[in-house]
Amino acid sequence: MDYLKRREKLYEWMDNEAIDLVMLQDNELRRDTSIRWLTGQPGDALLFLSSEKKALLVPWDINVAKLYASCDSMIPFPEYDCDPMKALGHATNRLKILQGAKIEIPSCTPYPDFLQYVDKIPDYDIICRKEGAKSWIERLRMIKDDDEISVYRALSALTNQIIDAIEQNVQDGRLKTETDIAMFIEYEARKLDCEGTGFTTLSAGAERSFGIHAFPSYTAAAFAGPGLSILDFGIVYHGYTSDVTMTFARGPLSKSQEARLDLVTKAFDLALSKVKDGASCKSIAQSVDTLFKKSRCSMPHGLGHGIGLQPHEAPFLRSRSEEEWKLAPGMIFTIEPGLYHPVEGGCRLENDILLTENGAEVLTRSKIVRL
Amino acid sequence: MDYLKRREKLYEWMDNEAIDLVMLQDNELRRDTSIRWLTGQPGDALLFLSSEKKALLVPWDINVAKLYASCDSMIPFPEYDCDPMKALGHATNRLKILQGAKIEIPSCTPYPDFLQYVDKIPDYDIICRKEGAKSWIERLRMIKDDDEISVYRALSALTNQIIDAIEQNVQDGRLKTETDIAMFIEYEARKLDCEGTGFTTLSAGAERSFGIHAFPSYTAAAFAGPGLSILDFGIVYHGYTSDVTMTFARGPLSKSQEARLDLVTKAFDLALSKVKDGASCKSIAQSVDTLFKKSRCSMPHGLGHGIGLQPHEAPFLRSRSEEEWKLAPGMIFTIEPGLYHPVEGGCRLENDILLTENGAEVLTRSKIVRL
Repeated sequence: MDYLKRREKLYEWMDNEAIDLVMLQDNELRRDTSIRWLTGQPGDALLFLSSEKKALLVPWDINVAKLYASCDSMIPFPEYDCDPMKALGHATNRLKILQGAKIEIPSCTPYPDFLQYVDKIPDYDIICRKEGAKSWIERLRMIKDDDEISVYRALSALTNQIIDAIEQNVQDGRLKTETDIAMFIEYEARKLDCEGTGFTTLSAGAERSFGIHAFPSYTAAAFAGPGLSILDFGIVYHGYTSDVTMTFARGPLSKSQEARLDLVTKAFDLALSKVKDGASCKSIAQSVDTLFKKSRCSMPHGLGHGIGLQPHEAPFLRSRSEEEWKLAPGMIFTIEPGLYHPVEGGCRLENDILLTENGAEVLTRSKIVRL
Repeated sequence: MDYLKRREKLYEWMDNEAIDLVMLQDNELRRDTSIRWLTGQPGDALLFLSSEKKALLVPWDINVAKLYASCDSMIPFPEYDCDPMKALGHATNRLKILQGAKIEIPSCTPYPDFLQYVDKIPDYDIICRKEGAKSWIERLRMIKDDDEISVYRALSALTNQIIDAIEQNVQDGRLKTETDIAMFIEYEARKLDCEGTGFTTLSAGAERSFGIHAFPSYTAAAFAGPGLSILDFGIVYHGYTSDVTMTFARGPLSKSQEARLDLVTKAFDLALSKVKDGASCKSIAQSVDTLFKKSRCSMPHGLGHGIGLQPHEAPFLRSRSEEEWKLAPGMIFTIEPGLYHPVEGGCRLENDILLTENGAEVLTRSKIVRL
């Protein structure tokens, strides 16, 4: 990955915005994979980027950072008692930030913490805004670069391998319970040199598939018994996650179960047919809403979302989105229509889509499996 | 669980603080298990608590909430387009909050969002503070009630069962890789009716045990080869997590590896000997620092932390803590001294401790296993 090139893009933005220092933070309470995107450091760190184009990393675990991170210098976080304000105070010295300079802290900084920053670091102009560095990085990250697209091609092949194996093993009765399937995915993923799963696998047999995100995520109960079962999972390769959902339908099904399966498939195809450069994410999602509404159904979640170093990234395909996201080549995102009924169960079909100059490419092949 | 009794404690605090409405939020970006503690709802919801003692839950998934949540009323979050500000606007009407009343929003609300709340809900006094409702609930949660202690006794028995099985299976060579062990834990946990693991299992063979939290968390590589391997895991029962770390030491070990194992064991015993009602968490942690310093070692993380619905809760046993936490009966927390070396590897020993009127009780039995 060309981390320097990515940082250059941010330095350029800082220059335009007249920001002298950007601070990013990734910790247990507030994950920010932007640090990984900019340096390769997998987590638990602060990152300071100065207008002089210097990247100072402050990792919790220096041993891990030495193996993974690309930056100009690093100092272990414990040297600042793991206190971000102390670290910022020191970074301004080390990076020679002049008094009165503009320092942008993470947009997710809690209000009480913001007051403390302003109080403890009085010689600088501390900025915290929604449309700032972090949201700019998120915009940059929407368009995957060639390295990232290569990773996604490899990742999708691995995901498809697992999808096929699951289908086969469920058909053959070798994977019987919700846990069997979740464990199979974890095991196969690590065997295929993946970092693991991108989020907790949701494996819900017919009794529990009414939940959008089943709780608990999986149990020792049977999977793929009579009715509709849902399996939602993603695996992580070089930090990037896939995100797919298969529905397993074991008959006999009721007429309305059949109708919903049909409707979800139609919704997926409809959405896919509208994917092209410049398309409005909101209007794609609204077209699916309209389709469902005709059959007196409604979907309680968004139609899709970008994927990358996080399982949910921009752009968001939502019918009630405030932001007007437009599709563009290089974007990788899910399309995942779903319908849920407290008695008849749920069904969802989710695949990962890459938009290229030549149009939509469906990277993964999850489907509704008939048993 | 007596959710009503818990809410009563909060209503009492609201009365003292003259707060008319408390809003709590649990979502993907900012988890807050307080909602589960107060209602049983396992996640993804807003909770509004009024000074008139009414609890209004706004869950993302109404089907899941109907199964789990105890509250006075509920409205699905999608009815507000999953927008917390819209939901708050409506809650003030529904709960008949008078204009000018004090409304406390979550302490973790980002600064830019706080400005929006103030702007969009101008008729109320919007409060966001560090030492507010959320931190008060965290203080209440430090002292486990009888129901919670019963859960922890059962949970510890299950955790110990898994600890013993892992030791046996590693000794016998049946669990060979990092992934084998992580999968074994997941599988056994679900079989024992647990919700799953409390955090990603960290399973690091001798090549990777230098990391405080190994990255990736586990791989297909060998576990428990010559040298020091670390296994850090927790399982979840009725929402509550255990948190233990075993170290596996396969000889021949170097003198300094032996010395560090010895030191970590001594540190654990030293800390445990100081656990009693009224003891200062900071001074316990400092006594371990002093012990390590005598051998020219230092620990890059805290000595321990409370556990409960979250894997890291108050009180915190840290030598450089700003807050002066004192131990009290009903607290359940970890003691987890560890030392890490980039070449010789890491070792950590972590067990869960319950403090009762009669003193410290070590709930779990993880240990340094010699191979």
